[in-house]
Amino acid sequence: MKSLADCSVAVIGLGLMGASLCMDLKQRNLCREVRGVTRSLSTILRSFHENAVDLATTDLNSGVAGADVVILSTPVRAVIAMLETLGPILWPGTVVMDMGSTKAEICAAMSRLPATVQPIGGHPMTGKETAGYAAAQSGLYEGAPWVLTPLPCTTPETITLATELATAIGAFPIVLEPARHDRLVAAISHLPFLLASALVHTVADSGAADAAVWELAAGGFRDTSRVAASDTQMFLDILMTNRSAVLAQLGTLSAHLQELRSLLADGDEQTLRAKLTRSQQMRANWRKP
Amino acid sequence: MKSLADCSVAVIGLGLMGASLCMDLKQRNLCREVRGVTRSLSTILRSFHENAVDLATTDLNSGVAGADVVILSTPVRAVIAMLETLGPILWPGTVVMDMGSTKAEICAAMSRLPATVQPIGGHPMTGKETAGYAAAQSGLYEGAPWVLTPLPCTTPETITLATELATAIGAFPIVLEPARHDRLVAAISHLPFLLASALVHTVADSGAADAAVWELAAGGFRDTSRVAASDTQMFLDILMTNRSAVLAQLGTLSAHLQELRSLLADGDEQTLRAKLTRSQQMRANWRKP
Repeated sequence: MKSLADCSVAVIGLGLMGASLCMDLKQRNLCREVRGVTRSLSTILRSFHENAVDLATTDLNSGVAGADVVILSTPVRAVIAMLETLGPILWPGTVVMDMGSTKAEICAAMSRLPATVQPIGGHPMTGKETAGYAAAQSGLYEGAPWVLTPLPCTTPETITLATELATAIGAFPIVLEPARHDRLVAAISHLPFLLASALVHTVADSGAADAAVWELAAGGFRDTSRVAASDTQMFLDILMTNRSAVLAQLGTLSAHLQELRSLLADGDEQTLRAKLTRSQQMRANWRKP
Repeated sequence: MKSLADCSVAVIGLGLMGASLCMDLKQRNLCREVRGVTRSLSTILRSFHENAVDLATTDLNSGVAGADVVILSTPVRAVIAMLETLGPILWPGTVVMDMGSTKAEICAAMSRLPATVQPIGGHPMTGKETAGYAAAQSGLYEGAPWVLTPLPCTTPETITLATELATAIGAFPIVLEPARHDRLVAAISHLPFLLASALVHTVADSGAADAAVWELAAGGFRDTSRVAASDTQMFLDILMTNRSAVLAQLGTLSAHLQELRSLLADGDEQTLRAKLTRSQQMRANWRKP
């Protein structure tokens, strides 16, 4: 059975997530070799100079040839397209993982890989609103949940290796079915993004009438709107591959918001207080990651 | 003309905002005397021991007797009730300020004070989701906007003194009409609070079906929901004294959210991308406080 220390790991996509993973793997000597595959020549130079990889290339074929583990770290739909390209060129026995933010469509695409490779879906639950190699940092995954979504064909050995990788960089692995993962992240990640976008648009409407609103915007606006600054392509891929779950969460949210609005409009202070107290207590008692 | 250094300043209410103000005034020697008025005996002992005040009392009369500046630092409707009580007992020439989060109803109450005192509304735009004396800290106002809302009877000398106070503790004063202040903060403060509450309720609904949602909740949920943990009484007072402006903002937000929802449901990726790109750019370009 392969252990991480014996593996050559190829990471495809050296943005925030992929490059941060490379830095951890390389700088903590967690595997035999770290390869980076990227379309950007400047990222090749920079990742090599900054000791984030042993080898970097724009050539997909040579990047994955002979690698024990191939990790796809691009927006979701690029992962899906890449899996189609990779199928015929992966060596037998290669473990194929990904770091995409939705899992059902990616795992469906993984199920179409040749039976000679070992696929497993993955989603480290961390990030920043800034994207790209320049935002990457070692230690990004420290303390973060890392969801693993095995396929029916995924062997226990592959799950063990993926678990070892997540644990080695400080994340804690959680094994879930793809559809369950997608339902849960619709509520705690995709919904907050849409709320933040709607909030920014609302404040911008206020700002069009009275620009002083931007002068007054303080911590409440800053935090509630933060994720709206996230990479648009990344979130567009997320939303388009998790539509039904996101729409369901939007429906629930709209109902709660409408209830708050009615209570305020009616001046029903007692019921409003009870509802606000419940969310106050739940949020204050939630263990912060 | 009074300067801050010559003033005895009495702060009524030693919660997060009032106690933090006392600490700055006292520990930086910005005025002649700092008095704290609080209903809590333990806060009296603690504020005195921790060098946050020169004098602390539960007795409103002796707390404000002879003070040059009286600053009300309680939830909005407690400020309004307190103004009624204070009217007959304030010494002539006293400057009366407040730190309440809405301004129109407070300034209306201030306009009913005796003509012998000098009122001015105020709202420092900072805070934390934790309330009470225990959360207070010196330096809380550093870099924060501090809105001042003078009344028609407010003299230039009073505005100058209030400006001197805000500036002395590192805030930057912004003079606005009360109704304009209330419209602006409805968008950037009161609306985010209601959104955060609705989000917490929505995630709790998910959690009732599948508790793993709380394990996965990461930075996006953490930041977008943070203000939901704010003091309920404080926000209830805010909402009930700024209903029409908050309801208007809720209407705008709901329209944006509904538009995002329709674009996603229809799979209109091009329009969705354009709308998400606009909020991404506006949020990324906003100077963060």
